[in-house]
Amino acid sequence: MAKNSLTLESVRHSLIRQEDSIIFSLIERAHFPINSPTYSPSHVSNSFSGPLLRFVVKETEALLAKAGRYANPEEHPFFPEDLPPSVVPPHNFAKFLHPPAASININKDIWDTYINKLLQLFVAPGDDGNYASTAASDLVCLQALSRRIHYGKLVAEVKFRESPQEYEPAIRAKDRDTLMKLLTFEKVEEAVMNRVAKKAMMFGQEVTLNKDGNHEKYKVDPSVVSRFYGDWIMPLTKHVEVEYLLRRLD
Amino acid sequence: MAKNSLTLESVRHSLIRQEDSIIFSLIERAHFPINSPTYSPSHVSNSFSGPLLRFVVKETEALLAKAGRYANPEEHPFFPEDLPPSVVPPHNFAKFLHPPAASININKDIWDTYINKLLQLFVAPGDDGNYASTAASDLVCLQALSRRIHYGKLVAEVKFRESPQEYEPAIRAKDRDTLMKLLTFEKVEEAVMNRVAKKAMMFGQEVTLNKDGNHEKYKVDPSVVSRFYGDWIMPLTKHVEVEYLLRRLD
Repeated sequence: MAKNSLTLESVRHSLIRQEDSIIFSLIERAHFPINSPTYSPSHVSNSFSGPLLRFVVKETEALLAKAGRYANPEEHPFFPEDLPPSVVPPHNFAKFLHPPAASININKDIWDTYINKLLQLFVAPGDDGNYASTAASDLVCLQALSRRIHYGKLVAEVKFRESPQEYEPAIRAKDRDTLMKLLTFEKVEEAVMNRVAKKAMMFGQEVTLNKDGNHEKYKVDPSVVSRFYGDWIMPLTKHVEVEYLLRRLD
Repeated sequence: MAKNSLTLESVRHSLIRQEDSIIFSLIERAHFPINSPTYSPSHVSNSFSGPLLRFVVKETEALLAKAGRYANPEEHPFFPEDLPPSVVPPHNFAKFLHPPAASININKDIWDTYINKLLQLFVAPGDDGNYASTAASDLVCLQALSRRIHYGKLVAEVKFRESPQEYEPAIRAKDRDTLMKLLTFEKVEEAVMNRVAKKAMMFGQEVTLNKDGNHEKYKVDPSVVSRFYGDWIMPLTKHVEVEYLLRRLD
């Protein structure tokens, strides 16, 4: 599907698909205990300063940047400063978004939310020494969350194209509250929260051959996944949508 | 659980848990089309020679090695040559395996099997330009497969400790065929193949709120996952088990 034929339907389909990725990544991260030295600036080395997670994410992003990852406008680095340029032949990604979209990157908020609020809600206490693998696993979570939340740019563009007259007055007035109201559909959000809980049950159960899984214990608590969506993922996505719309007439 | 208290039960539990990781990683990879330039030596850059996948895996392993990943004897790099040393404080991983185990690394076989045999069986044709993200996704698959297959070392050690007298004659005679027979339980393998197919259905369905998913279309064909296990993953695991046992009395 060419990106210029994006519709609200196709954008929603991608958001639903991305729920799977987010839940898989959380389940995989929950396989390790919290492993707090991964996040501690005191567990450092002479070779790099700051927490191990920062080192792993920054260095991985640098090599993926060389490999061309951030040429896709749907990908957003956590450390955009000093990223090396791509060294592979450029791919012609469809230009669907209004150009000022490129300046929107709320990964700092996503990082802080993930480390300081989400992690302790779905990961068990403990330390098994696998800090590098834990950091690699966190990176997959962070990338999936970042991709979903910044997908708000595409959501906003599709909604704007469907009825520009509905958004233009609030955009011109820089009226964030009205834009937020226009972008909020409580019924839809409720359905998302229910669906991700159901997915956390399906994907996080112990599948056995004899019965339909162990319905008492899930690898990540479905109500926690629901809460992530309700309290953070959807609000941050709408924040991106509002920021995008505010620049839409520039 | 301390690694010195590993039992056949706990090892089997880990293998079952790793099935989830492998299936999640395949489903995530299947989100991209084949994206063949990722594997092509001709889609190169002046900054590195060889396919993009090789660059991404090699560079990621180098940074994870610095972060201490390969201090865990359960992790095996695909490019062990010239890996930089860890720069973080060493963690005291339990020493459960017989020391010669460290010399067993069949990642070259796993790499070749994955690229040349498995990929085209579960990934759609096409090219969406996301080669860096595709390579990152392949790396997660490769790591999950490598971890599972090399877990054969732990399986073999547990089995050996349970009944050394059963294995010693074949080990001393370097009799691979007998060892392979001793390690093969057709009923167990059949159960694994059925369970992974069921998991591929559970994890790869489209979960909706109204019904129990779309049972006609899965993100990765469950029979293909079953075949991966029967034709490659279990045989390669047993190959590791045999190699391990052959060194067990050194």
